[in-house]
Amino acid sequence: MRLIVGVDLGGTSIVVGTMAEDGSALWGEVSEPTPVALGPDAVIGRMVAMVGESLARTRQALGTDRLDIAGVGVGAPGPLDTDRGIVIVAPNLGWRDLPLRDRIADGTGLTATLDNDANCATLGEWWQGAARGGRVVIGLTIGTGIGGGIVLDGQIFHGASDVAAEFGHMTVDVTGRRCKCGNYGCLEAYASGPAIAARAVEDLEAGTPSAIPTYVDGDLTKVTAQTVYQAAHDGDPFALDVVRETARFLGAGIANLVNVLNPDVVVVTGGVTKAGDRLFGPLRIDVARRAFKPAVDACRIVPGTLPGTAGVVGAVAAFKVQHWGAV
Amino acid sequence: MRLIVGVDLGGTSIVVGTMAEDGSALWGEVSEPTPVALGPDAVIGRMVAMVGESLARTRQALGTDRLDIAGVGVGAPGPLDTDRGIVIVAPNLGWRDLPLRDRIADGTGLTATLDNDANCATLGEWWQGAARGGRVVIGLTIGTGIGGGIVLDGQIFHGASDVAAEFGHMTVDVTGRRCKCGNYGCLEAYASGPAIAARAVEDLEAGTPSAIPTYVDGDLTKVTAQTVYQAAHDGDPFALDVVRETARFLGAGIANLVNVLNPDVVVVTGGVTKAGDRLFGPLRIDVARRAFKPAVDACRIVPGTLPGTAGVVGAVAAFKVQHWGAV
Repeated sequence: MRLIVGVDLGGTSIVVGTMAEDGSALWGEVSEPTPVALGPDAVIGRMVAMVGESLARTRQALGTDRLDIAGVGVGAPGPLDTDRGIVIVAPNLGWRDLPLRDRIADGTGLTATLDNDANCATLGEWWQGAARGGRVVIGLTIGTGIGGGIVLDGQIFHGASDVAAEFGHMTVDVTGRRCKCGNYGCLEAYASGPAIAARAVEDLEAGTPSAIPTYVDGDLTKVTAQTVYQAAHDGDPFALDVVRETARFLGAGIANLVNVLNPDVVVVTGGVTKAGDRLFGPLRIDVARRAFKPAVDACRIVPGTLPGTAGVVGAVAAFKVQHWGAV
Repeated sequence: MRLIVGVDLGGTSIVVGTMAEDGSALWGEVSEPTPVALGPDAVIGRMVAMVGESLARTRQALGTDRLDIAGVGVGAPGPLDTDRGIVIVAPNLGWRDLPLRDRIADGTGLTATLDNDANCATLGEWWQGAARGGRVVIGLTIGTGIGGGIVLDGQIFHGASDVAAEFGHMTVDVTGRRCKCGNYGCLEAYASGPAIAARAVEDLEAGTPSAIPTYVDGDLTKVTAQTVYQAAHDGDPFALDVVRETARFLGAGIANLVNVLNPDVVVVTGGVTKAGDRLFGPLRIDVARRAFKPAVDACRIVPGTLPGTAGVVGAVAAFKVQHWGAV
């Protein structure tokens, strides 16, 4: 059985795993913090070492010293030049024009490919997760920012210059909240993790009654999206309102995507999925209310089923697409 | 030389023309009002008669009685089932579940295909017009409503259930103007022809000074988008404001599409293009301000260059794609 190593490089952590080519198993999953402050050489060194570690664990798991390894698929934040394997700009890493694919290939002695991390996560959910069987798949990864991916007939859609699926900066309110990108009313300014926390804190500071402050010993600077979900889970009416409002903005954004692309699956991944049905219930209702009915009827909106590994699984799938034309 | 007849069926008029298979010439262009009130049989009868008329004129133009006709491509409002050649619902025509493709084939004795009118217009601009050479092409047709099309590598992108590219009902302002679809803040509620007129009239009724009323003998019910463009052309400051505001909303909508699809061409067709650089200047600035820079850099935003015939040209191109796999 041939193996492919998947590497998911994020601004916070690096996750590596080794997969059977047919997707039937994942071994040697390792996760470590990204040593961003030490610079690109250190980060690449860590990635290479983790590939070695993952393969060592895979050898152990399979009880063999001989592995047939096709190569390494890497998912990284971008924008990228996927054809040339270059990270053009990665603000969270402080990188610019870094030939990451070839550096990983040199370091590991293995063939490597590079693709966008959010694209990989979407492709991973299509190959092995919640979006299986979809012909037109949209992925939204909601965390510190909002990333996205489009998978058409099992292939990542890259657009004209490799930067398609920037869903976080769709305008949902032309005169709305300022986004850190400088514009007003971007989806990310409402529905990213930090935006959810910021919207809650603004109202709490204005005196809205809520149990949220008791979760952070009264220190509102410690409120995160997780705090809001926890309070909502515990029945706090204000926290429930914040989650419902989040669903409203996310619903407007997803309704736009449904109207534009007529997907059969929208898969939502990242921390926000922890809000569960409190989020997905109103979200589905709002999309149904806003989007074109025949497009709504064709589409299921689901949480991802590969938390933590969608990026690794998708990097492996992207390797297969780049090398063999299909997953 | 083989010929293909193109038919563009709209709620107001039917346009038919006969093209050389390679797109090098268009003969026998005929246009007539759509006899909507007489019902589908009358409309189909008119379409069939117009195909005959177009072919008669083509025979005359070419000075021959023998034409080699491959078939008829029809563009019609939808949603459609393109595979089965059926108009599922066409509100402007009052049609439901009409097997238009086969009715046209029966009436003309020619092979026929059916595709969405706005898809056809986009494909036409890609084949012979302003979007030539584009790999990822977005078309917006702005008239009574806002229709759209997506053309990827010379193929219409249909989505999962044949209703992709419903750009008119993208939300650009979650708490904004009510749209006739029942929702709030749809692009169409700001930037369609009737919406442009309605926005102007609201302010005029509230007493905003402007020369617009002099164009309609003081009867504000007669104000159309064309009136606004004409007054803007003549230098009326309020009319110029309305055009600039239109550019702002259209810019937010197009920026969303640029962020989602990373197109190399956005082609805008329909009456709104008559506002010319007064619209396209601020529109391009607004898209550049709102959308992701690498995506903006890859994209040109242009008015269509086939006014009146994009739909016919595109229906011919769609026939070629459906029959031979490519244009």
